[in-house]
Amino acid sequence: MVAKIVDGRKIAEKIRNYVFIEVNKFYNKYDIKPNVVSVIVGENKESTLYLKLRDKACEKVGISSTKVKFSAEVSEKQVVEKILELNHDKNVHGVLIQMPLPSHISASKIFEVLDPLKDVEGFTPENMGRMLLGDEFIVPCTPFAVLKILEHEKIDLKCKDVVILNHSTVVGKPLAALFLNRDSSVSIAHIFTKDLKSYTKKADILVSATGVAGLIKKEHVKTDAFVVDVGIIPTEDGVVGDVERSVKEVAGKITPVPGGVGPVTVACSLLNMLKTFKNCLK
Amino acid sequence: MVAKIVDGRKIAEKIRNYVFIEVNKFYNKYDIKPNVVSVIVGENKESTLYLKLRDKACEKVGISSTKVKFSAEVSEKQVVEKILELNHDKNVHGVLIQMPLPSHISASKIFEVLDPLKDVEGFTPENMGRMLLGDEFIVPCTPFAVLKILEHEKIDLKCKDVVILNHSTVVGKPLAALFLNRDSSVSIAHIFTKDLKSYTKKADILVSATGVAGLIKKEHVKTDAFVVDVGIIPTEDGVVGDVERSVKEVAGKITPVPGGVGPVTVACSLLNMLKTFKNCLK
Repeated sequence: MVAKIVDGRKIAEKIRNYVFIEVNKFYNKYDIKPNVVSVIVGENKESTLYLKLRDKACEKVGISSTKVKFSAEVSEKQVVEKILELNHDKNVHGVLIQMPLPSHISASKIFEVLDPLKDVEGFTPENMGRMLLGDEFIVPCTPFAVLKILEHEKIDLKCKDVVILNHSTVVGKPLAALFLNRDSSVSIAHIFTKDLKSYTKKADILVSATGVAGLIKKEHVKTDAFVVDVGIIPTEDGVVGDVERSVKEVAGKITPVPGGVGPVTVACSLLNMLKTFKNCLK
Repeated sequence: MVAKIVDGRKIAEKIRNYVFIEVNKFYNKYDIKPNVVSVIVGENKESTLYLKLRDKACEKVGISSTKVKFSAEVSEKQVVEKILELNHDKNVHGVLIQMPLPSHISASKIFEVLDPLKDVEGFTPENMGRMLLGDEFIVPCTPFAVLKILEHEKIDLKCKDVVILNHSTVVGKPLAALFLNRDSSVSIAHIFTKDLKSYTKKADILVSATGVAGLIKKEHVKTDAFVVDVGIIPTEDGVVGDVERSVKEVAGKITPVPGGVGPVTVACSLLNMLKTFKNCLK
């Protein structure tokens, strides 16, 4: 048996088409297009790459994206003041904070200040809490992308044994909440897990987001499992994921790297921009 | 081997003593005592019993607790208005909403309105979100009690395999976040789990909150596991838990019912009242 490779680019295209149509509907009705602002502090190679991809995606669907750039030495107070200004600016329909922030700026302080209605990435405490409480108002883009992929492949999540390798606030913890909201059984393992294989081996759905190239081998995976590879690791031979090629021999479905979760995450970011735009028009 | 029975009443007493001392410290300094208000809609036997226990505990530590009672037919708008009034009342230092609410009143609507600083039960989206983000400001009482018990027994949670049987917003989901914040590996199973035993059997720490009397038998439990029984089920022979007596033969430590998680939960409610009181004084 060879696993079906799930084409993330195709899923992303469907989502982009939907956003494009919606954006134009609003433009025809109200003569207004979404305008989102990215707040960037300092320089970061990886996030610059992601930003470029996102800007390109925004352009394609008619979302205008602008940038507010600070040097790495800016004070927390100055960033907070800018966020407050963006909260009140009627011409701004969504705000993104580029992570990671320099260590002297508290991410939790910044996200406490950001208006939850303009929170494109779903990282404000209020949006995180609503999600945990089962009210998925704005969901962080990577967990959202994982859900969209499973939805596209028509996987019923109820009763499934799901294993997530990641317990960060950006991926693992929100994703666990999303699966629990859908009555999956959920296990979260990570770098401090004693016996990783005892977890991965029982997964109907295995979501790996460790950032360790090739960590997941075929002996880790149950026959016919759905393997979602969230790893994006740059190497000399291009970008690779957490999952070794041999896994294709046992898994039922698998998302590739590149061309899997990555493009869907960018597309889900557009979906969230559409959401915050609609929030602002209410 | 016979499991050590963890005495919840003793842990609760320690917590109450701490709250008593703190409340008196503030009284001596500012001549003010905490005043919390419970909002009760309609009648509910079980919650009435819990309320009585909590009122008694409040009295013991010098917290004044008053009640606002509505008939089951009250409109959502009226309850929302009352919450807003309590938010602004300087003589109110904490608010509890008695659950469950009648079906025509949305709990999420009510908790969205409640001031997070006065949220004794940690159920507002903002407090839930902060907890998921690793900032444990006010934590729901039952998950808080489970943590306090493990802390009292000096259990290092890092790297432990934890299994939680419950995926509600009151117990399972917040408790999972708390364990993940401490680098445990966490599995959440529930009524839709295919093979319960495959989960329970691997747990170093097993937290059962199913409400099914005697569901957990000795064949479900790993040798030397710490079993926390959150079940409180009234029967003809008194209150019992999820865990069958025979589990004592294999577990390392076990919390009894009654006298385990129950009294610690009430005590943790006092800790949260102290917290919201301090928030109001800032």
